[in-house]
Amino acid sequence: MSIKAPRGTADILPEEAAKWQFIEENIKDVCRRYHFEEIRTPLFEHTELFQRGVGDSTDIVQKEMYTFEDKGGRSLTLRPEGTASVVRPFVEHKLHGSPNQPVKLYYFAQMFRYERPQKGRMRQLNQFGVEIMGSADPAVDAEVIDLAMTCYRELGLTSLKLVINSLGDKESSYRHRQALVDHFTPHKDEFCSDCQTRLVQNPLRILDCKTDQDHPAMKTAPSILDYLNEDSSQYFEKVKSYLTLMGIDYEVDPNLVRGLDYYNHTAFEIMSEAEGFGAITTLAGGGRYNGLVEELGGPETPGIGFGMGLERLLMALEAEKINIPVDSDLDCFLVTVGDEAEKVSVQILHDLRKRGIQIDRDYQGRKIKAQFKAADRYHAKYVLVLGETEMERGTINVKEMATGDQEEVSLAELAEFMNGKLLRRK
Amino acid sequence: MSIKAPRGTADILPEEAAKWQFIEENIKDVCRRYHFEEIRTPLFEHTELFQRGVGDSTDIVQKEMYTFEDKGGRSLTLRPEGTASVVRPFVEHKLHGSPNQPVKLYYFAQMFRYERPQKGRMRQLNQFGVEIMGSADPAVDAEVIDLAMTCYRELGLTSLKLVINSLGDKESSYRHRQALVDHFTPHKDEFCSDCQTRLVQNPLRILDCKTDQDHPAMKTAPSILDYLNEDSSQYFEKVKSYLTLMGIDYEVDPNLVRGLDYYNHTAFEIMSEAEGFGAITTLAGGGRYNGLVEELGGPETPGIGFGMGLERLLMALEAEKINIPVDSDLDCFLVTVGDEAEKVSVQILHDLRKRGIQIDRDYQGRKIKAQFKAADRYHAKYVLVLGETEMERGTINVKEMATGDQEEVSLAELAEFMNGKLLRRK
Repeated sequence: MSIKAPRGTADILPEEAAKWQFIEENIKDVCRRYHFEEIRTPLFEHTELFQRGVGDSTDIVQKEMYTFEDKGGRSLTLRPEGTASVVRPFVEHKLHGSPNQPVKLYYFAQMFRYERPQKGRMRQLNQFGVEIMGSADPAVDAEVIDLAMTCYRELGLTSLKLVINSLGDKESSYRHRQALVDHFTPHKDEFCSDCQTRLVQNPLRILDCKTDQDHPAMKTAPSILDYLNEDSSQYFEKVKSYLTLMGIDYEVDPNLVRGLDYYNHTAFEIMSEAEGFGAITTLAGGGRYNGLVEELGGPETPGIGFGMGLERLLMALEAEKINIPVDSDLDCFLVTVGDEAEKVSVQILHDLRKRGIQIDRDYQGRKIKAQFKAADRYHAKYVLVLGETEMERGTINVKEMATGDQEEVSLAELAEFMNGKLLRRK
Repeated sequence: MSIKAPRGTADILPEEAAKWQFIEENIKDVCRRYHFEEIRTPLFEHTELFQRGVGDSTDIVQKEMYTFEDKGGRSLTLRPEGTASVVRPFVEHKLHGSPNQPVKLYYFAQMFRYERPQKGRMRQLNQFGVEIMGSADPAVDAEVIDLAMTCYRELGLTSLKLVINSLGDKESSYRHRQALVDHFTPHKDEFCSDCQTRLVQNPLRILDCKTDQDHPAMKTAPSILDYLNEDSSQYFEKVKSYLTLMGIDYEVDPNLVRGLDYYNHTAFEIMSEAEGFGAITTLAGGGRYNGLVEELGGPETPGIGFGMGLERLLMALEAEKINIPVDSDLDCFLVTVGDEAEKVSVQILHDLRKRGIQIDRDYQGRKIKAQFKAADRYHAKYVLVLGETEMERGTINVKEMATGDQEEVSLAELAEFMNGKLLRRK
């Protein structure tokens, strides 16, 4: 009996993995230009980190975490999102003490959420994300949004919508919260049980509820934008003006609250508007979290970041019919005739590979004709033939498959000869 | 209160991450040349996969797995080793049905083992590994070993020891197993309780025991090499002759049994002989597993592979005092004076980054002198100054830090100018 991959997970097979590599290389190069550096953190953390760092009132913490006890009785949780996992080492390794502020980090990481799997929603998913900690400059907010948009655009995506909002500073959001409570309390009994809890824990979360989204009180709910104080309002204006300076279009949506508890000021989402993309259109989301570093035991430090789903990025590329250029053609395939040639082939492969050349051979004991067929299936650019005649002369026959041209090359000069050939093709 | 990383896990901070990237890029290029393709598999699998695919009698399955139930009551286990995780998708996606045989795969993956953490032994560790499925050619065994050695050598390691052994085919190992039972049974009561169980489950495992390693019966235990039948013996001879043809030195150690249940024929380990490397010297280990694909529900298919610890690879590089070349110098740092210049800087950064140039600026509201200091700390190759004079003229001042040379460049031509400068440096 065979065993399948766990529900909600997927294998990335070689053809697909080559696309992932291409996308990751591109995004890494964007990060290099924007001067972000990589950080890698453990797959699991103490459960408390996410309870405190994502927020007790969030769906993630309440319903979706993979939490387990290790053999030492510690409660551990597989990373459900990226920010808390980056803020934790920022505090633990005192990166706030470095003179190089702000600290600009990026990560590629698997995330784990126990949800009902559907298209674009996996239990194990891959995210790229960035975090900037140590600056409260609204230009940083704009830079982070710019980086996300650049990643998408350089891969060829055009049907994108950027939505932004401000959740204001503490004072503003406190006043807004009061207004929400006043607004929703008369309708309390008409809401789902989750929202009744949210009314006490975090009324902002009600605006995010999928069950109650059509309740008439939703449309008339007080907008955060009417409750921003002077500082928050100016901050938001600056972020918007910087986006305009960079030629980045956006929409303001006062109902955009994002799924995490700790956001303040700028919140944003990037959606795909490509036809046939599916029901879940969010590609990336992020926001500012000025209280989080302190919450997790560090000094008062502003921060902002986003997470970008890579499975959804691939879906968006597909929806926009963008082909990822992947060169899977094999450089050289070695065809041998006879036992002696097979022995020499071991040396040839070792030598050519050491010299930078991609080469493979038959390992199935195939006859010569079937070896040529294998070379064809790999789209070999060159087929090297080592038969009895060549063995006697200490040579090898090199056939360029695109032209049919053949040359007899001495074995001693083969690596150099092939390197020249392959270099000229590039 | 701050939260720490879980015991036995480590954060990889930016300076260290740059080294990891360098090593991974190098290993990926070796894989390209040897014509291996990447596969990525889920972090967790159904527990049964490892019970069947690693072996019930192994320490890994018996003592070291991170096993937990998900909210649906399924028993899941964080991947403790690579082979079963690659054989499972090979069977599930019927890769054995492809005409391109053998299937040559590589992976970079985190592994999880609940062990007492010590130097070179983490609970979450990073492995690179390869698997070849679909060929029983001994040249494949040699190719896999060659690939591992090439990865190490191209990174500069020289103090390496390759140890190989043959565990023979089924018939040979059955006869050897009987001989071991006969040999050890008289000493049964002198052995640890684990070994008493092993005597019934898998007597080969006794040779691997750390508790009983000094028992006199160990030294006189029957050697597998005396029990190899003709086929197994010839197979081993061929592997050795291929290694010799490639100039790869090796030692034969008949006690090398490796920690997994399913090995047969070739088993190997690569050790570091560098001074001060520490008590655990194994860098990589692998072997042939011709029964495993069938055991996991696929057709009878031979296979071989290895896993290489990347934390230990980094330790070996350190022990051999090999510096990994990492260029962390920033290409450009933009210094601005005044509010207007700051606005323009948002556009300049966006534009230059879009054109491929790495550039950063101050986000801390620093005065001009402190901005220059920041540029110094980043080892900026060029400092671009946008002051009031330049703003009036629509220019920017470009200073090459290595020479002190300064030039005034029009803003419209800046990207092109900088691209030219940076290209010439390379």
